[in-house]
Amino acid sequence: MSAPVPRITAWALPGIPEITPGDDLAELIGAAVDAAAAQEAELALADGDILSITSKIVSKAEGRQVAADDREEAITAETVRVVATREHPGGVTRIVENRLGIVAAAAGVDASNTPAGTVLLLPVDPDASARALRDALWARHGARIGIVITDTLGRPWRLGQTDVAIGAAGILPVDDLRGAADSAGRTLAVTTPAVADEVAALTDLVKRKTSGLPVAVVRGLARLVTDEHGPGARSLVRTGESDMFRLGSAEAYAEGRAIGLAER
Amino acid sequence: MSAPVPRITAWALPGIPEITPGDDLAELIGAAVDAAAAQEAELALADGDILSITSKIVSKAEGRQVAADDREEAITAETVRVVATREHPGGVTRIVENRLGIVAAAAGVDASNTPAGTVLLLPVDPDASARALRDALWARHGARIGIVITDTLGRPWRLGQTDVAIGAAGILPVDDLRGAADSAGRTLAVTTPAVADEVAALTDLVKRKTSGLPVAVVRGLARLVTDEHGPGARSLVRTGESDMFRLGSAEAYAEGRAIGLAER
Repeated sequence: MSAPVPRITAWALPGIPEITPGDDLAELIGAAVDAAAAQEAELALADGDILSITSKIVSKAEGRQVAADDREEAITAETVRVVATREHPGGVTRIVENRLGIVAAAAGVDASNTPAGTVLLLPVDPDASARALRDALWARHGARIGIVITDTLGRPWRLGQTDVAIGAAGILPVDDLRGAADSAGRTLAVTTPAVADEVAALTDLVKRKTSGLPVAVVRGLARLVTDEHGPGARSLVRTGESDMFRLGSAEAYAEGRAIGLAER
Repeated sequence: MSAPVPRITAWALPGIPEITPGDDLAELIGAAVDAAAAQEAELALADGDILSITSKIVSKAEGRQVAADDREEAITAETVRVVATREHPGGVTRIVENRLGIVAAAAGVDASNTPAGTVLLLPVDPDASARALRDALWARHGARIGIVITDTLGRPWRLGQTDVAIGAAGILPVDDLRGAADSAGRTLAVTTPAVADEVAALTDLVKRKTSGLPVAVVRGLARLVTDEHGPGARSLVRTGESDMFRLGSAEAYAEGRAIGLAER
């Protein structure tokens, strides 16, 4: 008999109420964990579990609502750099780098799942929020957990959006396989899976956007959970010299022509 | 007593051998499913399961190996459009749109986990491969399954790579929530989660790159599995007018200036 096949399990926590400014998010999440565990004992938090928390509820607890009339001003205030803009029948889309280093439409200022007449800014410091939630929930449940705080981003060249990690604590953002051997014994030179983003994507599939389920638990990835809070999701931001698209792909392309690559 | 909390479970299939040209991939995957089910009955394929298959083994079965010495020529042959290039100490990175519409480094031509002295091209038509695998595995196991074929892509502005779906059959590529209401009853105007890509990301976490586990099963997402093969992963490619980064973000930014958006 072989060892059991390892697996990942993920579920969304029922019972998280609508969040308002000043709410104790760790306590509300902890109570939802307790309620799930009362129903099914295996849903109690365990060492190595990862909690995935939608940034929207972190923002709401932090009081990051602003009046919808101030949306454009808020986007401008959150913007560090305009990456691209486009006019369309519904208005203007601005893709910008925001103060967190995240490149997002409207700087991540969000108008869905927010109270009428308001929009929501991203948390002030999602990595710090993740660390605080981790400390509180680890203490409350006695389980060595990891935390990711998620947001929904579009992508160049691909339709639709995926969730990514904009805050993290106690989880490797990247599973660095550089130097590891592939199955043929050859060194994997550039393989650095963005596992925190993959956890965010995974949990979007259980949280869904229309279900009012902003928190999910992932079990089976204890290898990614660390003792230290670690570098956080900010470390996933590609900046400066390593960003081939900092000044636009046209510039990157021009650089390519200068070094003699043929155009097709 | 409430209903059980719904969950997603994912596992990688042990026992897929090294694939060589001409192998019957559906038969080899089916045998691995049978072996897992012999060990744990619940691992038999069931209606609504999604199989995630690393494109590398599809390419190998299709005989898409070329000699490593011909790598640059192969990249050029797979390239439709150069998006960006950069010279660095290790050589030149070319980010290009390939004939599948996928924007990828080196056009997706792959030198890891391939036999020594060879590189691997992407499958000829990953959506067609997914349809053929679905037909064969549905017939073999009597289960209405979905298929995604995955590849590993870098991202602008974010470090690390995530797996995405480059082929799909019997699964919604995008879970179109446009027109659905959010939890406050407001219409979700632009929310179209790229669920096939999120499934690919999820399964990368169980397949891993150094483990020799190229196939995973996901259970708990039957809502995404369709009777028809559907539009495939090709439908996730953002093309032409909808691509703000087609001619580079510098151009997109210039368009923004032309319509009066302020620079910061």
